[in-house]
Amino acid sequence: MTTRSDMRVWENPNGQAGSDLDIALAAWVSTGADTRDHSDAAVRGLIRYLMAHRHGTPFEEGYLSVTIEVPIFVAREWMRHRIGSYNEISGRYTELQPVFWVPGPSRGVVNVGSSARPKMATDEDLRSRTVAELTGVYLAAWQAYRRMLDAGVAREVARAVLPVAVYTRFRARLNPRMLMSFISLRIDHPENWYPTFPQREIQDAAELLEAMFAAHWPITHAAWVASGRVAP
Amino acid sequence: MTTRSDMRVWENPNGQAGSDLDIALAAWVSTGADTRDHSDAAVRGLIRYLMAHRHGTPFEEGYLSVTIEVPIFVAREWMRHRIGSYNEISGRYTELQPVFWVPGPSRGVVNVGSSARPKMATDEDLRSRTVAELTGVYLAAWQAYRRMLDAGVAREVARAVLPVAVYTRFRARLNPRMLMSFISLRIDHPENWYPTFPQREIQDAAELLEAMFAAHWPITHAAWVASGRVAP
Amino acid sequence: MTTRSDMRVWENPNGQAGSDLDIALAAWVSTGADTRDHSDAAVRGLIRYLMAHRHGTPFEEGYLSVTIEVPIFVAREWMRHRIGSYNEISGRYTELQPVFWVPGPSRGVVNVGSSARPKMATDEDLRSRTVAELTGVYLAAWQAYRRMLDAGVAREVARAVLPVAVYTRFRARLNPRMLMSFISLRIDHPENWYPTFPQREIQDAAELLEAMFAAHWPITHAAWVASGRVAP
Amino acid sequence: MTTRSDMRVWENPNGQAGSDLDIALAAWVSTGADTRDHSDAAVRGLIRYLMAHRHGTPFEEGYLSVTIEVPIFVAREWMRHRIGSYNEISGRYTELQPVFWVPGPSRGVVNVGSSARPKMATDEDLRSRTVAELTGVYLAAWQAYRRMLDAGVAREVARAVLPVAVYTRFRARLNPRMLMSFISLRIDHPENWYPTFPQREIQDAAELLEAMFAAHWPITHAAWVASGRVAP
Repeated sequence: MTTRSDMRVWENPNGQAGSDLDIALAAWVSTGADTRDHSDAAVRGLIRYLMAHRHGTPFEEGYLSVTIEVPIFVAREWMRHRIGSYNEISGRYTELQPVFWVPGPSRGVVNVGSSARPKMATDEDLRSRTVAELTGVYLAAWQAYRRMLDAGVAREVARAVLPVAVYTRFRARLNPRMLMSFISLRIDHPENWYPTFPQREIQDAAELLEAMFAAHWPITHAAWVASGRVAP
Repeated sequence: MTTRSDMRVWENPNGQAGSDLDIALAAWVSTGADTRDHSDAAVRGLIRYLMAHRHGTPFEEGYLSVTIEVPIFVAREWMRHRIGSYNEISGRYTELQPVFWVPGPSRGVVNVGSSARPKMATDEDLRSRTVAELTGVYLAAWQAYRRMLDAGVAREVARAVLPVAVYTRFRARLNPRMLMSFISLRIDHPENWYPTFPQREIQDAAELLEAMFAAHWPITHAAWVASGRVAP
Repeated sequence: MTTRSDMRVWENPNGQAGSDLDIALAAWVSTGADTRDHSDAAVRGLIRYLMAHRHGTPFEEGYLSVTIEVPIFVAREWMRHRIGSYNEISGRYTELQPVFWVPGPSRGVVNVGSSARPKMATDEDLRSRTVAELTGVYLAAWQAYRRMLDAGVAREVARAVLPVAVYTRFRARLNPRMLMSFISLRIDHPENWYPTFPQREIQDAAELLEAMFAAHWPITHAAWVASGRVAP
Repeated sequence: MTTRSDMRVWENPNGQAGSDLDIALAAWVSTGADTRDHSDAAVRGLIRYLMAHRHGTPFEEGYLSVTIEVPIFVAREWMRHRIGSYNEISGRYTELQPVFWVPGPSRGVVNVGSSARPKMATDEDLRSRTVAELTGVYLAAWQAYRRMLDAGVAREVARAVLPVAVYTRFRARLNPRMLMSFISLRIDHPENWYPTFPQREIQDAAELLEAMFAAHWPITHAAWVASGRVAP
């Protein structure tokens, strides 16, 4: 049995298409012009305008395919974003692996905010006791899972015993507009115009995604930051 | 701590609108006619035609709002249907209740089919041992959850220990087209033209939903059955 | 042949479900509480909170089914809103009616703004000349349409001659979240936090829709206005 | 003024990602296996299985961005497909070009089928009279459009006079699942399991799209044809 605290997101091979220029070209269709200044300055000016005026559809030009490894409780939050395509490992078709999440050293485990606006504070003693509690149950659950499988119980029944901390893996496909929508809700960032209170773990995953977004669409990313990180 | 085997789906107050006639009226917009035979026979004829020719959009007329109580492993399958609206109890905002799923007496626990086409057979001895295994871990998980909460651990951290068998509750809104899509994939029925191999628990929930669908849209339901239970 | 300037939107019989309270009940699922203060004050407080924090999904509880009569150039803008369900009269299945749009007396016909931020000014002389130009072509188009149909030309071919000003009719189904998204983009209102520059005719239709939204969901409507008419 | 009969669809630069193998990789996530036979035979076997069992989500892996030039009456049909992203030339922001559709020599203009199942027969004499009727109105409409613009009438008003035969241009982004859904409804093909009766012009456009689909995803295309051209 393994315990981890990190979230993983990586790009799939052949899983990226489009650029800031392509977003601009999509928007320029509106005015039907054939000859255009395609310089970065022109693209930047247009994209800032689109962002400020909430013209969202040109940001649906582009594609990113990623694989995600996170605990089930994070996958559950992620897949509430319906404008996306998912394929996930199945606990009916395959045996799950004994990898479980525990809070790492920097992870606050005490809520010193309110219920609706949680704010976590660290407490190393409490964290280590929490890890012990979690690990004890994970081990018992895993052993029960294995015993049931070995006794001939179907996977779809035996898996019921596994905690939501067990890691799952899925593939997701997103366009830049979806990326902005996801990240704006899942990262609590000082430059956000709208407050959001995501759980730390999905924020960790969203930060990995934001780095990919910024790498492939740097002008769009900068304009979105300048517009308060609000998805158009 | 409580264990259960049943799935629950019930209609929300004020949560239903539309009828077979409304679906027909939506379709009749296409031909722009103002005077119409609104008899059941006319509605039935039209709806059969729409179903057989896969004219899907008129079946988006109508609305059903329901509440669902199922284990997390069933909720996860349900929410993969993206054409729907959901609100679910949050393990961050509230303490979850100690209610867990176990396989009931009639529930097959041995897969005598293949991995891709599971087929469950009952085995009472194995089932009762499974219930014992599951219940043991549920109790340990629940006690750890309570101890962590009592020690001041944040709900969003403590919940990681809970098995996917814990019951959750959510609200869903669907139209007749979504109902047909959901049910066609989640019920293994002898009249299905396309085979499907749902897990027993989501099929139980889908059967409750089908009864509501048949009650509110009887002509549509009958036409869909006659068309091999394929969503248009 | 008839000319008109107005847009029409009316509710379909049996085409409404849900209320402000139902939106609140959807949101309260998150905290799982069974006993609740269901007073208007409690509902108002919650809905304001949801709106300010962009918790959008509870506003997907509810349903409104309407019929719309507008020129094709307005229907084209409307149907770019993909989160909606539509059924429209077909120019292939039926003969269209000779009803065409012309700008009415209060309709500005001169753009004194820019291309991206149009602003219309009235000019009665130019408007009446415009009506004459439009009417002349409408009549010629209609006569050609009739002659082609009478000569045996298929409707799907003959309709090609009809201007985009010809009135069409369609049915649309929306929930409160979609209503807010649509109205926020299609009405240029002084209380909008984000500017928008809709064409007058779709704004006329959106205003009819806003009145229905305000009538059925008054608390939600007021909270949305107080939040700068930005859809959550 | 120009008249045309053809539909145009072309791929945008940088507007393609994904392959048959990527679809297979998305599906293989379900079973979590790391080592795989990636041969064409293995991919083909899997994709056939997915298609036959209506496992649709792996076909959402992949991306195609295209530009389309068709008359407005075809664009209206196309954009009823909501699972797609569009950006179109705007008649408010720019002057439209004087290019109009007429039926070409091979285009049947007489409906010898029924209203719901149209079937077109050619009639060269009637076609040439139709072209004359259409062209006459197009010219009158275009001249009125120009006169209004020259007199200072706003584009958004003057465009009302233009027939739905005027060509428009838009960009669309699709994944393989959307491609199959679109093509299955818009091409009347002898191998279709479900009949469909599209208008000739959108079928012409869909055939161009099918060629691109077959070129980029040949195994998926072949499996879809073998499954009666029904989208999974």
